[in-house]
Formats: sequence, C-alpha cells, structure tokens
Amino acid sequence: MQNAELFTLTYGAIVRQLLTDLEEVEEVNKQLDQMGYNIGIRLIDEFLAKSNVSRCVDFKETAEMIAKVGFKMFLGVTASVMNWDADGTCCSIVLEDNPLVDFVELPDTCQGLYYCNILSGVIRGALEMVAMKTEVTWIRDMLRGDDAYELQVKLLKQVPEEYPYKDDE
Amino acid sequence: MQNAELFTLTYGAIVRQLLTDLEEVEEVNKQLDQMGYNIGIRLIDEFLAKSNVSRCVDFKETAEMIAKVGFKMFLGVTASVMNWDADGTCCSIVLEDNPLVDFVELPDTCQGLYYCNILSGVIRGALEMVAMKTEVTWIRDMLRGDDAYELQVKLLKQVPEEYPYKDDE
Repeated sequence: MQNAELFTLTYGAIVRQLLTDLEEVEEVNKQLDQMGYNIGIRLIDEFLAKSNVSRCVDFKETAEMIAKVGFKMFLGVTASVMNWDADGTCCSIVLEDNPLVDFVELPDTCQGLYYCNILSGVIRGALEMVAMKTEVTWIRDMLRGDDAYELQVKLLKQVPEEYPYKDDE
Repeated sequence: MQNAELFTLTYGAIVRQLLTDLEEVEEVNKQLDQMGYNIGIRLIDEFLAKSNVSRCVDFKETAEMIAKVGFKMFLGVTASVMNWDADGTCCSIVLEDNPLVDFVELPDTCQGLYYCNILSGVIRGALEMVAMKTEVTWIRDMLRGDDAYELQVKLLKQVPEEYPYKDDE
C-alpha cells in the first residue's frame, strides 16, 4: 500500500510524454487505452487473487464488482453503477472522486484528450480475461467540464469458457 | 491509499513505451530520470505536508528521512542508508524490496537500461527543492544481477535559502 500521489504524478508524466512524442491527441487517447488494456489483462489476476470473490453470475454483478471492489482496490475510491439498459448489457460506471486527475489542468491545446483513457483500457482488458468482450467509452469527464466521470461499459459478446479437454474424455 | 500493482504495471507500460519511442536505451534512462525530476519537485510538497517532519539539520538526517519516511510514504517500503564518505556528503540508499520491479524481467535487448531511473530523478528533484543540489547514481541493480538496489546520493552544493525580504527590513 502506498500514497496515491506518486502514481498520480507519474501518470501525469506519461500523458505529457505521450503528448510530446505523438503530437496528435487522438493518438494519445489510443495509446493510453492500449496501455490500459495491457495492464488490465495482467491486473485481473491480482484482482481475483486478492479480492477472493467468487465467480460473478452475470454482467450486472460484474459491473458492481468493478465499481465497488476493483476501483477501491486499485485507485482507493469507489464508483457507482447506473444507467442500465433494458437487457442488462450496458451500464455506466460513475466516479465522483478520481485520484488520477489530482493536480491536473488541461491546457487548451489538449482539447479532445481523454486524460483518464488508461482506465477504460484497464476495464476492457480485465473483462476480456474473464471472457467478456466489451466496449468502454467516456460519457462524462470533469476535465472537460462535466459534473462527474462516467464510463459506459457495453457488453458485446460473452465468450463461453473453453476447457482444455472435453467433458467426456 | 491503494494497491501498488496498478502503479507497478503502469510504470512498466511507460518504460516499454519509451523503449519503443526512443529506441536508444541511453535516451530512455535520461527520459526516466527527467520524468522523475519533474515528479520530485512536486512530490516534496506532499512529503513535507504529510510527514510533518521538521527541517533536517544536515545531509545525514536528510538521507535518513528519504530512506525511512519518503520511501515508506510513496513506495511502501523502507530503505537503508550506508557507505557514508568521511565528510558526510555522499552515501548510499539501499533497497532490498522494490515494488517497481515486481513482474519485471528485462530482455537482452535492454542491457544498459536503468529500469528504476525514475527514482533517482525523484530524489534529485525533491532535494533540489530543499536547496540541495545532488548527483544520484545507480551502484547496484538487481535487474542487472546485483544483490540489492543501491543508489549513491552525492551532495554537490547546498544552496543557502533565499528570503523574499531582508532580515532587517
């Protein structure tokens, strides 16, 4: 366990570095998402090992687990799940407190930047490792003047688990 | 407070990114040090505010403070101070446990990389903000096969504090 500041400042340094190296804000968004994805596919193991949670029965339970246990474990804050669609395959995860953006102010040249895009990548990567293909999109972003951080998580496909051998062998 | 894994994996993602973008290992070392420096000059405020320590009387006390309070606060581990030179201006900070390198193995193509170079930059930046110019160098690095992480911190110059007004005004 550690203080969040070093992480926050280090993350800020990455974003600044990417803006310098890649120049295009769109490219930075993509790169942050990709970094998040690579982190998510590894972080899920930590999550499962430390949280001791049993398998989620459905996507609804999974979303709650991310918001209540996952965000708490890795960012030290909890989030709310809301805005479910009728068939339970799309919802929003809403953060009111976001340690990634402490000390951050975006200059005008960064319009279009999704500063916290690493988070959407982490969620997408982690869920893919538990057989859920998702699309994760920012709906609200306080750095863009909204009143909260809102990530829409849409379940595209639930891949059936593959066993290493057939049941009847 | 949060789990260290997200930070560790995020840091790994930065290093990988820099290796891709900059190609030369020497350039990556420089960039990590520079990022650390930029972080250090801001992190010192957090440190002073949270640690509630009073002003260190000399460089010896400062080194102990970094090792025992600073590393604990931001990385969750403590370090040892050793190998003082005769005039008390050069010592080593030795880490046996280093959360930055969990999960890390360097491929052969990364010889010459100081993976944790952000740390030397942080120390250098933070000390500069309390009027100490230092040079911080890696002496031992477990990712290079050594038995510990050892950072040599050398005090080059102690800048006298400048007051915004004269005492007799």
